[in-house]
Amino acid sequence: MAKELVAVNENWTVQTCLKEISIQAEDIDEIYYVYVVDDNFVLKGVLSLKMLIMKPTLTVIKSMVTEDVHFVRTDASQEEVAQIMEKYDLVALPVVDQIGRLKGRITIDDVLDIIREEADKDYQMASGISGDVDAGDNVFQRAWIRIPWLFIGMVGGIIGAGVLGSHSSQLEQIPAMAFFIPLIAAMAGNVGVQSSSIIVQSIASGTRNFDSVGRKLFKELTVAFSIAFLFATLIFVYNYFFNGNMRLTYSVSITLFIVMIFASVFGTVIPLVLNKFKIDPAVATGPFITTTNDILGLLIYMTVAQMFFKIL
Amino acid sequence: MAKELVAVNENWTVQTCLKEISIQAEDIDEIYYVYVVDDNFVLKGVLSLKMLIMKPTLTVIKSMVTEDVHFVRTDASQEEVAQIMEKYDLVALPVVDQIGRLKGRITIDDVLDIIREEADKDYQMASGISGDVDAGDNVFQRAWIRIPWLFIGMVGGIIGAGVLGSHSSQLEQIPAMAFFIPLIAAMAGNVGVQSSSIIVQSIASGTRNFDSVGRKLFKELTVAFSIAFLFATLIFVYNYFFNGNMRLTYSVSITLFIVMIFASVFGTVIPLVLNKFKIDPAVATGPFITTTNDILGLLIYMTVAQMFFKIL
Repeated sequence: MAKELVAVNENWTVQTCLKEISIQAEDIDEIYYVYVVDDNFVLKGVLSLKMLIMKPTLTVIKSMVTEDVHFVRTDASQEEVAQIMEKYDLVALPVVDQIGRLKGRITIDDVLDIIREEADKDYQMASGISGDVDAGDNVFQRAWIRIPWLFIGMVGGIIGAGVLGSHSSQLEQIPAMAFFIPLIAAMAGNVGVQSSSIIVQSIASGTRNFDSVGRKLFKELTVAFSIAFLFATLIFVYNYFFNGNMRLTYSVSITLFIVMIFASVFGTVIPLVLNKFKIDPAVATGPFITTTNDILGLLIYMTVAQMFFKIL
Repeated sequence: MAKELVAVNENWTVQTCLKEISIQAEDIDEIYYVYVVDDNFVLKGVLSLKMLIMKPTLTVIKSMVTEDVHFVRTDASQEEVAQIMEKYDLVALPVVDQIGRLKGRITIDDVLDIIREEADKDYQMASGISGDVDAGDNVFQRAWIRIPWLFIGMVGGIIGAGVLGSHSSQLEQIPAMAFFIPLIAAMAGNVGVQSSSIIVQSIASGTRNFDSVGRKLFKELTVAFSIAFLFATLIFVYNYFFNGNMRLTYSVSITLFIVMIFASVFGTVIPLVLNKFKIDPAVATGPFITTTNDILGLLIYMTVAQMFFKIL
């Protein structure tokens, strides 16, 4: 990942530097910074060409070098590099080995590509696509990147059918229960996707957000409670006026309340756990969280309804 | 959006330039390029500091200037700027007015922010969040950015309940039909989100993809047919062995086949139509497409099942 760069010795004068730069620079597209090294090629500081031009020609480099030079080690991750360059608005970043010797530089155009790639990958994950969207004209390639997540959806659907099947006596008794299956599944899915993408973005912007895991969960829970309460009330009002069956009306609202909170917690916790185990938390967004929450929603719906129809 | 920059006259020598630069550059953070202008301040070319250092001091600027300088007019859009800078790996881009006079420059760190913003916005749209995820600690603000899409989901759920309610006699006759509602809704939703995000990314990367609308639709349709056929077959095999009701087995597979194709077409066409009317096509990803396809899926399921149970 490192590239050619211009390096000068800290004991040289500006004049020597400019001469040396014009030799070293022959093969380099652009010089953004001039790196200052000692006799062992250990990185000591950084200069811009502007600084060199503006100083008297006999100034010694050592005396004008910037002390707080930003750099990365050769084993730094792409994300680390991108974060440092964005944070300090750098167009190039020097790379050093374990004992600080200058090995090369990374330029902003590499970082731009990384940022694009990361963003595209997260977006694709959230949409249930594994792989490049411009997968070419081959129909099998284009289908292949979509099949895995659809397969997860289908398995989830079959499990969902199993859950409903094991409560078929309830559905036979109150067929109107089936009417609200899509609503509960959709709300669970949507809330879960929101929560997971919020936490994934919060993890991705690591440097910008210092909330502890506990604090993140607490914030998400307070929001989940408010949203769940709002929508449980809305659907209650709707059913109260347009649905004759009061036991079903209660069941749907209470289910929705519980499901939305559970879906939020799941959506928040799963990416955090994946991240802990060094798995990209973005895999937990989109179809995965939707499928999990669909099944969860059905289970809670059937359980709550069973209780209500026994009690009332 | 334009920033301070260093400009030199095309008739100066390298020596004069370097002197002038050291004066102009006092107030500028970084010099990436030196812009060459004529007596009327019309942009004539661009130089890098490196080129200045490497040339004999008496060379006239005019003779060393790069002819094909990239620039934007003052009314250029953010996306246009980002695309040019990415395409040509530039770290700064000059801005000129309608008659070509140099007005300022845009640097790469501005572009980085734009790219991040655009990517975050698309990601949030796909996740059903309207607004900044780091919306602060206020629970109402944090809830507010999530409520609109959830509301759409709830209205969709209520319409879905209406669709099922109007076919309640069917559900009473064959309660097992309800078992496959979540599966069909989930598959419709997932395929639709995939299709819409593929087309949204394809629209966003305008310069990289020159397929006509017809070609895009054709490519999507061939993929949709293959995927729909695959999953309709898989669920047929599953139901053949684990579900006694052959009429239901046929209904579910045929429904799934039709629904997946319809969902793909919807997911592709809606963003294209929005884009035609200058609305950000990204609003059609996520909850919007999921909700539409949920309802569509239920309608098709009920219609197909009705036909099959009459015929067979």
